[in-house]
Amino acid sequence: MKPESTIDFNIRWAWHSIAKLYNKLGQQHDLTMAMGFVLLNIDKEGTPSTHLGPKMGMEPRSLTRMLKTLESKGLIYRAPDPNDGRMVRIFLTDLGKRKRAISRDTVIQFNQAVGKRIPDSKLNVFFEVLQQITSIVEQENIFKTA
Amino acid sequence: MKPESTIDFNIRWAWHSIAKLYNKLGQQHDLTMAMGFVLLNIDKEGTPSTHLGPKMGMEPRSLTRMLKTLESKGLIYRAPDPNDGRMVRIFLTDLGKRKRAISRDTVIQFNQAVGKRIPDSKLNVFFEVLQQITSIVEQENIFKTA
Repeated sequence: MKPESTIDFNIRWAWHSIAKLYNKLGQQHDLTMAMGFVLLNIDKEGTPSTHLGPKMGMEPRSLTRMLKTLESKGLIYRAPDPNDGRMVRIFLTDLGKRKRAISRDTVIQFNQAVGKRIPDSKLNVFFEVLQQITSIVEQENIFKTA
Repeated sequence: MKPESTIDFNIRWAWHSIAKLYNKLGQQHDLTMAMGFVLLNIDKEGTPSTHLGPKMGMEPRSLTRMLKTLESKGLIYRAPDPNDGRMVRIFLTDLGKRKRAISRDTVIQFNQAVGKRIPDSKLNVFFEVLQQITSIVEQENIFKTA
């Protein structure tokens, strides 16, 4: 089994290519792929900081570091939840909202460009298999009986 | 377009799940996913260090750091190419060979486990689409005319 022919290698390669493209496109807006990704996951009504990690599959430490970066760049701020003062919500500043819109447009453009070049029937199988792989990895202990 | 429904989000999520699983499995062998991945790309006859980055899609700086780690753990060593003394090749130590074999078995097991659960016909479409996406990202400037 050559590395190039494995499922994991191909998924890794695809993801790295996409991340590289997003990082390149983000440069002119002082954004990285990871920053844009977090901005896209913050809602207009603010998002509880405890929801962000699980929503994005990010480790708590990486998320904390990322939120500090976004705060220092003036893209987000923290405020107590209006209904539950013990809970902290992350909000977008005006600048953060503009950067979020840029990130959103980039993601939409990318997905449309791919969608135009690959027939729906194949894309549907692709999504189905990708989600199946993810759930095999996450839910089953495939190495238990092996 | 919700993030969860985009191509990039789903590829990222799948890759992160796989990387997490590999990191967890590697722990008991003092290996990370990234270390195992590099070991798998070093041939028995040694691999020129200049070939490794492009082969794995790794940035030169990350690769340099990684090779230093592998060297300090006694898994690889550097030696001049027997035919071209100006060229440096990376070789596996005996310990490196054992860790490479562990990484190889893990990758094979993972791929077999997925292969058993998903029909070939769907996996073939999956690979086709994944490679198409990667080549769209790498070869075309999809944002040029947009």
